[in-house]
Amino acid sequence: MIKVIVNGACGRMGSTVVDAVMKDSELKLVGAVDIVGGMDAGDKAGCGKTGVIVSTDLEATIKETNPDVMVDFTQPSVVFNTASIAIKNHVRPVIGTTGLTDEQKAQLDALGKENNTPCFIAANFAIGAVLMMKMACEAAKYMPDVEIIELHHDNKLDAPSGTALVTAEMIKQVRESHKQGHENEKEKLAGARGAEYDGMRIHSVRLPGYVAHQEVIFGGLGQTLTIRHDSIDRTSFMPGVVLACKKIMGLNAGLTCNLDNIMD
Amino acid sequence: MIKVIVNGACGRMGSTVVDAVMKDSELKLVGAVDIVGGMDAGDKAGCGKTGVIVSTDLEATIKETNPDVMVDFTQPSVVFNTASIAIKNHVRPVIGTTGLTDEQKAQLDALGKENNTPCFIAANFAIGAVLMMKMACEAAKYMPDVEIIELHHDNKLDAPSGTALVTAEMIKQVRESHKQGHENEKEKLAGARGAEYDGMRIHSVRLPGYVAHQEVIFGGLGQTLTIRHDSIDRTSFMPGVVLACKKIMGLNAGLTCNLDNIMD
Amino acid sequence: MIKVIVNGACGRMGSTVVDAVMKDSELKLVGAVDIVGGMDAGDKAGCGKTGVIVSTDLEATIKETNPDVMVDFTQPSVVFNTASIAIKNHVRPVIGTTGLTDEQKAQLDALGKENNTPCFIAANFAIGAVLMMKMACEAAKYMPDVEIIELHHDNKLDAPSGTALVTAEMIKQVRESHKQGHENEKEKLAGARGAEYDGMRIHSVRLPGYVAHQEVIFGGLGQTLTIRHDSIDRTSFMPGVVLACKKIMGLNAGLTCNLDNIMD
Amino acid sequence: MIKVIVNGACGRMGSTVVDAVMKDSELKLVGAVDIVGGMDAGDKAGCGKTGVIVSTDLEATIKETNPDVMVDFTQPSVVFNTASIAIKNHVRPVIGTTGLTDEQKAQLDALGKENNTPCFIAANFAIGAVLMMKMACEAAKYMPDVEIIELHHDNKLDAPSGTALVTAEMIKQVRESHKQGHENEKEKLAGARGAEYDGMRIHSVRLPGYVAHQEVIFGGLGQTLTIRHDSIDRTSFMPGVVLACKKIMGLNAGLTCNLDNIMD
Repeated sequence: MIKVIVNGACGRMGSTVVDAVMKDSELKLVGAVDIVGGMDAGDKAGCGKTGVIVSTDLEATIKETNPDVMVDFTQPSVVFNTASIAIKNHVRPVIGTTGLTDEQKAQLDALGKENNTPCFIAANFAIGAVLMMKMACEAAKYMPDVEIIELHHDNKLDAPSGTALVTAEMIKQVRESHKQGHENEKEKLAGARGAEYDGMRIHSVRLPGYVAHQEVIFGGLGQTLTIRHDSIDRTSFMPGVVLACKKIMGLNAGLTCNLDNIMD
Repeated sequence: MIKVIVNGACGRMGSTVVDAVMKDSELKLVGAVDIVGGMDAGDKAGCGKTGVIVSTDLEATIKETNPDVMVDFTQPSVVFNTASIAIKNHVRPVIGTTGLTDEQKAQLDALGKENNTPCFIAANFAIGAVLMMKMACEAAKYMPDVEIIELHHDNKLDAPSGTALVTAEMIKQVRESHKQGHENEKEKLAGARGAEYDGMRIHSVRLPGYVAHQEVIFGGLGQTLTIRHDSIDRTSFMPGVVLACKKIMGLNAGLTCNLDNIMD
Repeated sequence: MIKVIVNGACGRMGSTVVDAVMKDSELKLVGAVDIVGGMDAGDKAGCGKTGVIVSTDLEATIKETNPDVMVDFTQPSVVFNTASIAIKNHVRPVIGTTGLTDEQKAQLDALGKENNTPCFIAANFAIGAVLMMKMACEAAKYMPDVEIIELHHDNKLDAPSGTALVTAEMIKQVRESHKQGHENEKEKLAGARGAEYDGMRIHSVRLPGYVAHQEVIFGGLGQTLTIRHDSIDRTSFMPGVVLACKKIMGLNAGLTCNLDNIMD
Repeated sequence: MIKVIVNGACGRMGSTVVDAVMKDSELKLVGAVDIVGGMDAGDKAGCGKTGVIVSTDLEATIKETNPDVMVDFTQPSVVFNTASIAIKNHVRPVIGTTGLTDEQKAQLDALGKENNTPCFIAANFAIGAVLMMKMACEAAKYMPDVEIIELHHDNKLDAPSGTALVTAEMIKQVRESHKQGHENEKEKLAGARGAEYDGMRIHSVRLPGYVAHQEVIFGGLGQTLTIRHDSIDRTSFMPGVVLACKKIMGLNAGLTCNLDNIMD
């Protein structure tokens, strides 16, 4: 059994993770941490009593429960710190928060190697989203004109989304860089053509009624190819989170990114 | 019979108009003008000989053929001038070019009244696009959070499209103005959230393989409503152009805008 | 205060209705009925204690609590019976179940008139869906070639959905009946062209990951117009349910159908 | 230079092929055949004089011009015969017509081997469509619940389209066969759930304003993945046709199917 603690266990994603860990036969929930503690971790998750009481002290919980893995879907502003604490205590972080800087990622990689501990970060744990990103790379080889539209609920703070940025980064690796659109095109209203990334354009829609959606559109002579992923429920991420908790046990020390690198 | 001349008769839209005028039993093509002249106007249009030779002098053609209507789908930079010439000669302009400024429109309106001549401009002559705009206004009353995505071929110069701007203007009339998205949202790449118009957001996609497409998306609690128009062929505009040539005969002097104002 | 009971109060829709009624200042939850009883109706709804204990006897609950309105989103096989009981006891039914036959609807209408009690049934309580249906009727006048694609979760039993059928019925009222597609078209696999309704075609997609979605597509020369509604959460229906509970108080005796007939 | 003849050279696809062959530096148009002959093959294609006069006798044209390749996009009812004539004369057929039976394909394969001549058939020559089919196979491994919606102009005779059938066939190779939808689902209108193919469902939409479009939709827990290809112009097929004319020179005798088998 792989021993798992969940940081941010009372948040919306955290409590969904608590539920998923409880339901998996190879994972065992040994600890839960959040800003407010005291209740059973299963109460928020709606999965019945787990016997694990939410603590407010991550490091104490680690020392007490000796976990293999820490799952963390909290805010970008705190996750670097919690991941560092975990790694220094030889606990493997599985991180679902986007927004860490490249420098922070490099530091986690170094810290992981120093402490002989693997660390895993994915921008998106939904298998359909991972397939979308892989397909987008394949298509970009043959149809190099591409734009990304991502659509999220209107409580999302960052634009573009982490998934959109990772998608654009991945496409950049396989696509000859070029500016798209007409060379004389003009924005009559600033921002109309979206954000630019290596000549590609990214557009961020924010509306109530959306959860997490993305389209990658490729244009060619007389044709377009569109790949769209719709995620309407946090449960769509759970198979990926469970997979990561298992696969991280066999990863090399240091940082590994993105689900497709641990899929068979 | 309504006597029609086509300005820009050898362009892609112009030659499609020539073909449409020839096929309508109530319209008669009496003249055609373009930068280069000398050939039969039907040669470019692929509709056989029309007996109308393309001229390079608009005013001379007007004086010679005494037309009722001039159809013009040329560039924003020239259409104000050609429309003015037409009106001064008591010829009614049907204009499909977007990008005239509000001031230019006001001048055409005044000129039309002065010369007792009606003038008609539409951002979009496709019946489906007009329905989309009307529906969008209806929906905005009940679902006031809205974003527009317009998608065009990558030779288009202006962004957002004229149709997108007219749609936003029309929605503004019926929607209580408010800024959308989270108040603390941040663009990690400039332009990601698109252009702002009265709190709404407009996104312009430019890719080969597109012609003229637009989505208006409304978001509400647990639901979204999307209206999409796809125009893949210039022929989609012709029923609207023919209708305008007929209806303009009964319009008041001065400027009338948009197809829905002349539809039954 | 309007006194409301919920039949099927422990089901997914029923418990969402319990929650919505509790939150509205003009509605008062006075009773709850389901197959298994004994618990507080708020426990399933996750909205805290309501003081209303779920009963297993509808008629007894009605006599005890003297409600104004009964909300029922249960199965087609039982809802005719429960609505009849309600009407005979002068309680106004608000029904969200689709699948009642035309004959059953006629009987409820007659029973309502006999008992001087209004009854309300809607195929879809989402405001966006109602807008979609109204828009579809408007568009069909100008673009009479139309197909409907509805997409639902794969636990749905009936195909096409009630919403799709109501949409087709409404379009039929305004569209000149004609068979669509090529007159010599052939199905190489039976069912490929979908269900036929007055010459229109309806297609039903069933997949996990969907909730309740519908597209109405209109085709014309060189263009298509698509109206799409996506409902991803039962909460999208609640504003409509609450509205119906209020408006039914002023309706005439007998049956009234569909939300657009009670919207302002 | 590869010597090419086009059968059906005056049809819409045939004349587009004539134009594409003329524009490619490695291909040389040496003959053109159609039901009515006598004019220059370039007249219909709108690409100027080619010097190739359309003949009405395929076999005579082959003997006269000694071509390497015959391109044929004509009807299913005639293409088996023309392909047979070509193969017997050691001319390699590149066929874009769908609707040949499995038995006819087997016969062409045998005939090709007998005459030491390769033969190539593709359901879809658009690179985006080929990518869609490859991606669909990849996705089906991870998300085995899938439905196909194909949308075409309303002059199309067969449903489902050849591309949809090939897509379903390809998915069948990698997906464990299972019936989709609820086991008790019921069609209230026959055909609503579309055509069945190995447990998958295929839906065919036919409307004016469409050209050739297809969606492959995968559903999973809380998510859907959609791959859509839109082809709005016959020119989208030309890069694939030109590629096939070149690649067929190096293929083995007998039948090769589908563009992905000759792409790098």
